[in-house]
Amino acid sequence: MQKILIANRGEIALRIIKTCHEMGIETVAIYSDADKEMPYVKAASKAVYVGEPPVTKSYLQVEKILAIAKEEKVDAIHPGYGFLSENSGFALRTIEEGIIFIGPEPKTLELMGDKIVSRQTMEHAGVPVVPGSAHGLKTLEDACSLAATIGYPIMLKASGGGGGIGMVLCENEQALGKAYASTKSRAMAYFGSDEVFIEKYIANARHIEIQVFGDIHGNIVHLYERDCSIQRRHQKVVEESPSPFLSNGVREKMYDTAVKAAKAVDYTNAGTIEFIVDEQENFYFLEMNTRIQVEHPVTEEITGLDLVRWQILIAEGEKLPKVQSEITLEGHAIEFRLYAEDPVRFLPSPGKIAIFEWESGQGVRVDAGYVSGGTITPFYDPMIAKCIFHGDTRDQALIIAERFFKSLKIDGIKTNAPLFLKILANEDFKKGIYTTNFLTKQLKN
Amino acid sequence: MQKILIANRGEIALRIIKTCHEMGIETVAIYSDADKEMPYVKAASKAVYVGEPPVTKSYLQVEKILAIAKEEKVDAIHPGYGFLSENSGFALRTIEEGIIFIGPEPKTLELMGDKIVSRQTMEHAGVPVVPGSAHGLKTLEDACSLAATIGYPIMLKASGGGGGIGMVLCENEQALGKAYASTKSRAMAYFGSDEVFIEKYIANARHIEIQVFGDIHGNIVHLYERDCSIQRRHQKVVEESPSPFLSNGVREKMYDTAVKAAKAVDYTNAGTIEFIVDEQENFYFLEMNTRIQVEHPVTEEITGLDLVRWQILIAEGEKLPKVQSEITLEGHAIEFRLYAEDPVRFLPSPGKIAIFEWESGQGVRVDAGYVSGGTITPFYDPMIAKCIFHGDTRDQALIIAERFFKSLKIDGIKTNAPLFLKILANEDFKKGIYTTNFLTKQLKN
Repeated sequence: MQKILIANRGEIALRIIKTCHEMGIETVAIYSDADKEMPYVKAASKAVYVGEPPVTKSYLQVEKILAIAKEEKVDAIHPGYGFLSENSGFALRTIEEGIIFIGPEPKTLELMGDKIVSRQTMEHAGVPVVPGSAHGLKTLEDACSLAATIGYPIMLKASGGGGGIGMVLCENEQALGKAYASTKSRAMAYFGSDEVFIEKYIANARHIEIQVFGDIHGNIVHLYERDCSIQRRHQKVVEESPSPFLSNGVREKMYDTAVKAAKAVDYTNAGTIEFIVDEQENFYFLEMNTRIQVEHPVTEEITGLDLVRWQILIAEGEKLPKVQSEITLEGHAIEFRLYAEDPVRFLPSPGKIAIFEWESGQGVRVDAGYVSGGTITPFYDPMIAKCIFHGDTRDQALIIAERFFKSLKIDGIKTNAPLFLKILANEDFKKGIYTTNFLTKQLKN
Repeated sequence: MQKILIANRGEIALRIIKTCHEMGIETVAIYSDADKEMPYVKAASKAVYVGEPPVTKSYLQVEKILAIAKEEKVDAIHPGYGFLSENSGFALRTIEEGIIFIGPEPKTLELMGDKIVSRQTMEHAGVPVVPGSAHGLKTLEDACSLAATIGYPIMLKASGGGGGIGMVLCENEQALGKAYASTKSRAMAYFGSDEVFIEKYIANARHIEIQVFGDIHGNIVHLYERDCSIQRRHQKVVEESPSPFLSNGVREKMYDTAVKAAKAVDYTNAGTIEFIVDEQENFYFLEMNTRIQVEHPVTEEITGLDLVRWQILIAEGEKLPKVQSEITLEGHAIEFRLYAEDPVRFLPSPGKIAIFEWESGQGVRVDAGYVSGGTITPFYDPMIAKCIFHGDTRDQALIIAERFFKSLKIDGIKTNAPLFLKILANEDFKKGIYTTNFLTKQLKN
């Protein structure tokens, strides 16, 4: 490959540019009016204006992005995460234009994008799924009847949803009745389909995902797990690997299941199988993310691999760079998503970053989208940086993390760094005892 | 161990404190008037004033430091590098006070501190040494006679020297005659002994060192090499591992020789065997550094180990944490020593650091002694930070390094960062073709 267009912005665009740079591949960045001074725009070999905010007028403009790609004669498009990364129509149009889409095949994106179909596919392949509806619900009556069968609490979900959007927890029939219509209309607004389904709600759950990679020659490997249970409003905040919760037997079973799941759909490129794990370590397929994840550096730190490089090589038609037995896990890594937000009210806190400094050293990695002097605008996700720490042991990684956040100087905007210090000081967290309710229940205010 | 006093300052003091912190060990820092605001002073569990600059009145005050150590009831003293780290008298006094000295035994420090005796010891153990005088020279006539036998150019060296200090290159008898008296008097002033010796000068040489570790149970391992050939006035500027020059056969032979050398002196703790390597890959023992080296992070990055942790464990009497076959080398690492100095005239440039920012990410590690707002005083070595880069390959590590130095923003002081960009742009350097003359001859101005 000679040239890649990155159909994304911020830290992930910069992350992809770095790997391209190291591989001797030219890069084309796209930017909105709000992003023209961003580091990723300066780091690319060339940057092309794509439109004004919001994203519908710029980063989601499929035909405009493809026109830039053709004009710049790129060989491939890397979609990053979010935006068009899991849009099968975009992937298909890219391929139609004779450009490589760095990701799985469009039909896989489509299959996994539909939460009901992907659930059915996985069930068929022998992958355990959460008890719930195998089809979209026709009426509220259908929903209530099914919910009564599987038992409350249940989770009402949009078929086209993902990333925690379009999900409502219902404790009883009354709550389901109340949420049904609004969830359908929100699903239509967000995902273009009002189809919804229900699943049993697993209490005190862990959210654990397995990173997989497949090549076009039919090889599939896993790159271990990430425990992403620390969430706020179904959005991941802290991710670590290995999971401090899993026993080794279950861990191995989850790896095997993830590889089986990926094989069932002839998966290619980077993917993540998300599982929900209950207190007894029973695990159930949740969804598959068909792109590079925000939290991929956690896996890079424990394996010593460059996952974006793997994506590019696989998209070029190469075999997986390593076979399963060559992929080893060293130590423990943990990532914290540093956001420009009020740490008390959890509201975005856009503004200009006056100072942005931290103490580096062994085991510290910062994937930042901004430098000091940069401005967090209100148009996009207010993530400033991903702060990743690697140690021989979990305890060591947590100490490095705590030292980092104590050393962090960031001025001009509010951040959630104080929340991280609170998490790191929590006795349960230190012991690895946490569920998806950690921030709302376990962490004392 | 419960508590360690760090008899040093700056980045290495901070580096040691971090590992202690991760091991749950309390730390006592010492500081001069010039250093009271330094990050390492703030990072230590406790900091005690030791005296005013220069070093003779503070960091070299053996009895004062021991009094602090006793007062604070520390279990051990870590001497870092420089200052008292290779002072056998200090090690002996530490042990006399019932305190562990984190380093080799005093008798090893003494043996290796004398360049003539260490040369003899190594020759006796079958380690190749540079042709030269086996004894101290009595007169200029002795020197001229020996130099005529081994052939010019020769290097005139102080027996007590090290780190490039007290060495003069003599191209002919006239130059030797001129340098003899002044080198002797400088040797007396710096090292307390006017003993000098001569060695054949190896032209177009490489300076390659092997990291070794020994425990008190008689086990010795090597941790691969570091190529430190990029030097200015015999001071290392850039270090990397593996060496881009060595063939694999010679590399293995050097490892074996280094382990043999360490075994010959029953070496314990961290040590480095320095070799000079000629164009035909003949290698000769130069000296042994009996302490942690400035450039130890290069080895940490390729091995994934924490060398300071190993030092502490060994000083506690534990066995080496890994046997030779468990110590693997992954990828390539390179370190650049960032100095506060005029990049043209190479003079120290003390002052206050106004801004100190860089782009982090995968493969970037910065071991800094300062943060922005800090002041580089004229009293000590003006090293600001060690910038270490790790990639799968040498090419990748160099790309990461170049990107880092292009992103580096440092204001208020002059630094040698422009020199690094010049080195990184040099075609010979890119190919790994360089000798100790690189900065003076190969690098075009």
